[in-house]
Amino acid sequence: MVQAVALPRNEVGIEATVGILKQKFGDRLQTGQAIREQHGHTTTWIENQLPDAVVFPHSTQEVSEIVKTCATHKVPVIAFGTGTSLEGHVNAPAGGISVDLTQMNKVLGVNPGDLDCVVQPGVTREDLNSHLRDQGLFFPIDPGANASLGGMAATRASGTNAVRYGTMKDNVLSLEAVMPDGQIIRTGHRAKKSSAGYDLTRLLIGAEGTLGIITELTLRLQGIPEAITSARCSFPTVDAACQAVMMTIQYGVPVARIELLDEMSVRAANAYSGLSLPETPLLLLEFHGSESGAIEQAETFGQITEEFGGTDFAATSTTEERNKLWQARHDMYWACLQLRPGARGISTDVCVPISRLAECVTATQNKAQEMGLMAPMVGHVGDGNFHSLLLIDMQNEDEVSKADEFVGWLNDLAISMEGTCTGEHGIGQGKRPYLVRELGPGVKYMAAIKAALDPDNIMNPGKILPNP
Amino acid sequence: MVQAVALPRNEVGIEATVGILKQKFGDRLQTGQAIREQHGHTTTWIENQLPDAVVFPHSTQEVSEIVKTCATHKVPVIAFGTGTSLEGHVNAPAGGISVDLTQMNKVLGVNPGDLDCVVQPGVTREDLNSHLRDQGLFFPIDPGANASLGGMAATRASGTNAVRYGTMKDNVLSLEAVMPDGQIIRTGHRAKKSSAGYDLTRLLIGAEGTLGIITELTLRLQGIPEAITSARCSFPTVDAACQAVMMTIQYGVPVARIELLDEMSVRAANAYSGLSLPETPLLLLEFHGSESGAIEQAETFGQITEEFGGTDFAATSTTEERNKLWQARHDMYWACLQLRPGARGISTDVCVPISRLAECVTATQNKAQEMGLMAPMVGHVGDGNFHSLLLIDMQNEDEVSKADEFVGWLNDLAISMEGTCTGEHGIGQGKRPYLVRELGPGVKYMAAIKAALDPDNIMNPGKILPNP
Repeated sequence: MVQAVALPRNEVGIEATVGILKQKFGDRLQTGQAIREQHGHTTTWIENQLPDAVVFPHSTQEVSEIVKTCATHKVPVIAFGTGTSLEGHVNAPAGGISVDLTQMNKVLGVNPGDLDCVVQPGVTREDLNSHLRDQGLFFPIDPGANASLGGMAATRASGTNAVRYGTMKDNVLSLEAVMPDGQIIRTGHRAKKSSAGYDLTRLLIGAEGTLGIITELTLRLQGIPEAITSARCSFPTVDAACQAVMMTIQYGVPVARIELLDEMSVRAANAYSGLSLPETPLLLLEFHGSESGAIEQAETFGQITEEFGGTDFAATSTTEERNKLWQARHDMYWACLQLRPGARGISTDVCVPISRLAECVTATQNKAQEMGLMAPMVGHVGDGNFHSLLLIDMQNEDEVSKADEFVGWLNDLAISMEGTCTGEHGIGQGKRPYLVRELGPGVKYMAAIKAALDPDNIMNPGKILPNP
Repeated sequence: MVQAVALPRNEVGIEATVGILKQKFGDRLQTGQAIREQHGHTTTWIENQLPDAVVFPHSTQEVSEIVKTCATHKVPVIAFGTGTSLEGHVNAPAGGISVDLTQMNKVLGVNPGDLDCVVQPGVTREDLNSHLRDQGLFFPIDPGANASLGGMAATRASGTNAVRYGTMKDNVLSLEAVMPDGQIIRTGHRAKKSSAGYDLTRLLIGAEGTLGIITELTLRLQGIPEAITSARCSFPTVDAACQAVMMTIQYGVPVARIELLDEMSVRAANAYSGLSLPETPLLLLEFHGSESGAIEQAETFGQITEEFGGTDFAATSTTEERNKLWQARHDMYWACLQLRPGARGISTDVCVPISRLAECVTATQNKAQEMGLMAPMVGHVGDGNFHSLLLIDMQNEDEVSKADEFVGWLNDLAISMEGTCTGEHGIGQGKRPYLVRELGPGVKYMAAIKAALDPDNIMNPGKILPNP
């Protein structure tokens, strides 16, 4: 485990708060070790920092009461969705109350005519899409994990569909939130666009619960496309694959997904998912449109691949074949872990301009090899975002320290290429030093906003910003 | 004219600041009455409130020096682009320095492989598109006026293309800005997406110069589509036209523009642009795609119109015919003014969920008639946004007061329909009371952010927020 810095605890305040909330919430407030460990847990290598209690509100009003109690006693409040964040977002370095929103999981309304819906924050993306399917609608953001929509907004999540449909910032029309003083606000309503004042919607999206707790989301939906076509193509090099991606995007093909797997990832997928793909860099694509439109897009891509030495191009509109390929993509995390049984997977998350992508990926592969680290790579390459999954023996201190060095080196490389240290995972605890390296004096103004809205630093302290 | 509230002036500070800046900028600081009037002017009916001087910086460093001088002496700073904003955004209710950014008008770089570019804030959208045309690229946001890109970002502008390409918030990758203390920051770099900290980019977009001055923009570009097809169709009622719009959007047709003109607007267009369109509600559309794709989209729309009593459907891919129709759309402001020569045009800007659009437009038409006001309507109906252009005799006090009442009534109607009082024009001076009615306690947190970043309230005071 990588150590996380503990922050000073307000023991008196915590004790008082737990007592008050216990009285109010009864069994819906839990203080057992196991549940606290689970709520401080992270799917990362940062050590577990437990909250003092976990509370399960059922309404915005209850969230407001919890936050007001915590504000009165200056006790940390950590919003919790499904715990699938990757940078220590739900850790409690100063203890405090974990607010588990999974029981606020109702779809409050769907407006098919407006292509929008209103949901509570604990609804997961898979639950929402099951709910919408009958109406021919879907919510396009797919970060891989079956995350909660509140958590996805809080981390500004995206994933494989972002190249066409954007990220959470583009697909949330407005929010209801409980602010650090317990006040309930709305950041907007159901208009498709608005120029009404500061964009509090986008300020809360990506704030990782440090400025307020999202208690309701109004989401933009899409009609399920008439036709979906998948394609794959192998390339001699990462560079050739990236060139094909750039050309496809420049050509205006409205590709819905365009994913790159490097040689090592393809090997992992073959072994884990029983495929027999050529073990060279692979692009996996999906096209959404009318019957003829989706096929036309795939054909245009097919022609582009020829210019860059693509081989084994294949396109399919059959649901079964499509699902097999994309299931393999979704299983990549587990497939890669099988490359080194017993290892822990540590995901990087840089994003660079596409024109620098091949250079960045190649340098990353070389660096890993040079350092003796195993790091298969998958990428949402239409956006220039990729993840190297370091496979680390956490018992080997030297290896852990090398991995730490590697992550830092890669973050700095991406920043030097006009990119970012995080395309979609967020800053959390893990990337705080890199935020400063990426944005310099801009971070001072983030801290000023935080101090203005949350003067006692009770909302998810120790995340995103340097400690005050 | 509608009166604007004057704010207390800091005479001593203003005198000192003008003196210091005159020394530094020489002829690039102007204090003549005419130029000050022009820089306080607005294309609205709010009275002119002049700045004390206008300064023309050539670089971010110079903007920083200006702001630092103003900060030291607690003097207002008002950023000025082309002056085409509509809600008194560039007025100087407490006097101060207008910072005219038109001489910062360089395209600093275009990256065709990444579909992005970097520009100074004084570049206008037409200048940028001329610059890009040879490379097969374009910037899609078109608010009608040939506004500056800095100003478009500051007001969160959009326009006819927003239904497909989004608004300024969706098409700016990152910004450089001078903050209220004169510090220069970057909000991000050239990555297509990022989860690195609070979204300062989106916070500055739509802040109308009240949190900082935008000095550089990194913009997302689009490839010029292979084919563009236009279509038009007349409908028996506004309701029928809106139903056709909803069905088109729900059907997933990626329409690039979908504009509604009511009967009165069509009459104005016929007279002004020499057209002979049926004088009933009209939809004007544009489709972008491959040759076959654009035609397929138009045909799908054509089929949809039949369900809703559409008549006179016509589609064309000829540049000349297309341009004639869209030129007429662009000239609507002038065409409408001709309906009542000598009148002033006052534009409303509400935006509602599409399912409420027909109801909102019809109620608006009825209300205008009931009040004896002439108000032709055009709308970016794919987004639920429309503009009634009140044609007012500004010498007639009774009429001006009726117009004021009408605007307020419409803003409240839109808010009651889960919409917004401004889809794209911004709050400025004119809509400050409605912002509070729309977002309630949310405005308190906007004010807290403003106070934290600009404690002396020097950045465009008297705009967006209630006076402190």
